[in-house]
Amino acid sequence: MTELAPIPDFNVYPVRATIERAESWDTGAQVFWSDGHVSRYHGLWLRDNCPCAECVNPETLEQVFDISTVPDDLAAASVAVDDAGSLTVAWPDGHTSRHHPGWLRAHCYSAPPVVEGMVQSWGSDFVVPEFDGRDVLDNDDALLAWLEALHAHGLALLRNCPLDDGSVEWFADRISFLRQTNFGRVFDVMTKADPDSSAYLSIELPLHVDLPTRELQPGLQFLLCHVNNASGGDSIMADGFRIAETLRDEEPHHFKVLSTLPMEFRNRAKTSDYRQRVPAIRLNDDGSIHEIRVGNFLRGPQHVDEADMPRLYAAYRRFIAMTREDRFRVTFRLDSGIMATFDNRRVLHARTAFDPASGDRRLQGCYIDTDELNSRLRILRRMAARAHASA
Amino acid sequence: MTELAPIPDFNVYPVRATIERAESWDTGAQVFWSDGHVSRYHGLWLRDNCPCAECVNPETLEQVFDISTVPDDLAAASVAVDDAGSLTVAWPDGHTSRHHPGWLRAHCYSAPPVVEGMVQSWGSDFVVPEFDGRDVLDNDDALLAWLEALHAHGLALLRNCPLDDGSVEWFADRISFLRQTNFGRVFDVMTKADPDSSAYLSIELPLHVDLPTRELQPGLQFLLCHVNNASGGDSIMADGFRIAETLRDEEPHHFKVLSTLPMEFRNRAKTSDYRQRVPAIRLNDDGSIHEIRVGNFLRGPQHVDEADMPRLYAAYRRFIAMTREDRFRVTFRLDSGIMATFDNRRVLHARTAFDPASGDRRLQGCYIDTDELNSRLRILRRMAARAHASA
Repeated sequence: MTELAPIPDFNVYPVRATIERAESWDTGAQVFWSDGHVSRYHGLWLRDNCPCAECVNPETLEQVFDISTVPDDLAAASVAVDDAGSLTVAWPDGHTSRHHPGWLRAHCYSAPPVVEGMVQSWGSDFVVPEFDGRDVLDNDDALLAWLEALHAHGLALLRNCPLDDGSVEWFADRISFLRQTNFGRVFDVMTKADPDSSAYLSIELPLHVDLPTRELQPGLQFLLCHVNNASGGDSIMADGFRIAETLRDEEPHHFKVLSTLPMEFRNRAKTSDYRQRVPAIRLNDDGSIHEIRVGNFLRGPQHVDEADMPRLYAAYRRFIAMTREDRFRVTFRLDSGIMATFDNRRVLHARTAFDPASGDRRLQGCYIDTDELNSRLRILRRMAARAHASA
Repeated sequence: MTELAPIPDFNVYPVRATIERAESWDTGAQVFWSDGHVSRYHGLWLRDNCPCAECVNPETLEQVFDISTVPDDLAAASVAVDDAGSLTVAWPDGHTSRHHPGWLRAHCYSAPPVVEGMVQSWGSDFVVPEFDGRDVLDNDDALLAWLEALHAHGLALLRNCPLDDGSVEWFADRISFLRQTNFGRVFDVMTKADPDSSAYLSIELPLHVDLPTRELQPGLQFLLCHVNNASGGDSIMADGFRIAETLRDEEPHHFKVLSTLPMEFRNRAKTSDYRQRVPAIRLNDDGSIHEIRVGNFLRGPQHVDEADMPRLYAAYRRFIAMTREDRFRVTFRLDSGIMATFDNRRVLHARTAFDPASGDRRLQGCYIDTDELNSRLRILRRMAARAHASA
């Protein structure tokens, strides 16, 4: 069922439909599948993806064949289906390529690419998913469940987390290495002398993302509560995707402005000077929301054309006003042993002011990048698929 | 000349022109400068950027005032110039804002934003800038000269580098913290058993960037040669910006394809599965080249509409063929103690095959992100400007 040997890839490609017939088409092949689907592949594509040990290094599984070296008019000499059910393509120079049917169908481009996992935005009625921290540390199934929740919703809580110094990193390590920043690898969120961030004061922090001043904002943020017995210091979160989608529905002119006009983001510090000039709302090619970039205390002086400045302020002020509306906000309290993990490019976070004289409030935090979450999710799903295929 | 106190910023804003006159304009102010320039500032912009200790936290210099809290029709009650030459704005609620003339002119938006530093692409006649490695480690002026060269050209060599194990990181540390990857913090480029990258074989590596599979490709790559006495293993580099610009001039239809159609990038490994779907050439808003993404051995199966596939292959094959043209390539040999540093999102690097039986070849490498280079450059320039202003 799951043949791995001829595929230069560690993934699993189950054969969900077999090749009934293949014929020459254009420079390549047309493939008729047992489920009625028809796929068409160009000669250059088929040659480029030849999985043989001459074209792909067998140790690294990386391609060594260079598609720019074949003639412009390269075309298959003949195409057929072999006894194992693979597509075979004979080339004019004598080379032969064999494409496994599971792999070939998974990469059919006569249909649009499959989107990995769906993301659904949430509002104030969102029930934040919760998992057990020690399970996540010990068990890959629990890890996968937590990561799927983070991928889908951008926010989850872990209870029962160990509180050793730096233990927040144990959770990040379950996914991948940390993303270091100018605040270090693991940072302590508490009041500090000579603070270089509003986070290190006791004032209210409005809804924001961390490090909007970076070209790539950190993907996941981890905040593990060690102590929180001061009065105040509650957590507020909102799905920036939901706010942006609502803005698009209700006031599309503001949405247009925030997704096209650049805003200025700057940090102010003695030893670093990060700057970005980029729209607050970034879209994917299909128009869905890619990421949000807001943070009142990390903005620089705005610089757009004079005629655009009033539109920019009107749209930005509306967005910030929406972050204060109840319909978007969930509120909870991080008590000792609870960790919040959230998609820092999507979910805005805030805390209410606290009174440092009334008690202690101390969190430890760290970041990893979105690529690392996605890669780890693919590996865990791959392991699950492999286990399923061999069962 | 350089007044720092009233500006919530660590930068230096010399007064190159004074305010001759200010008058009410729209909701804000119109400012007439001693050099004849006229700037116009809206009320919301002036209020948003109020630098007073009530609007900006004096410890972090981060903004606490929230511009979304003022009325839609906010307008200055009056504007004037004070004895120190600052613009003063009185607001209807009694608040007053004072804007320092150096800061105000530097942020004038009646003119386009200033581009930081010019980038000029190069071809085969490029003389690679060289500096002394120990100077760069010891001396901030030498550091600044090296970084300015890297910023402008995307490639520089350091000679006379110490060869302690891990010393490549000392150079990265002169800029900022490392960018860790799945290959570790500092990686050894040498032949390895069970290699997870073509870099760890002795085969030729074609011109490529590292980690095109990541959303944010590492910005600077450092490669410090410890030993290179095998036959072969020469270094080849090319400015990807120059190749892309030339393609735009010579075959604009191919350029259009590579800057708009997404390509698939994948790694193939047991413990990671990174994927990106993004054009090979990414542009800035003004049409200049932002970054290049090519690497034959890190591509996945391409997935664009069937009708676009021949155009994608034609354009990609042309670009790769151009990387082999002499007009774009510089060649050198990394000998022991020489370090190449280059903009990994711009400068393509390659090595010729080497014979591991003929001798040893071992480099140590690491990465940092573009944000870190830019921030460090701004800080070094700020220090130089401050020294100049106080001299």
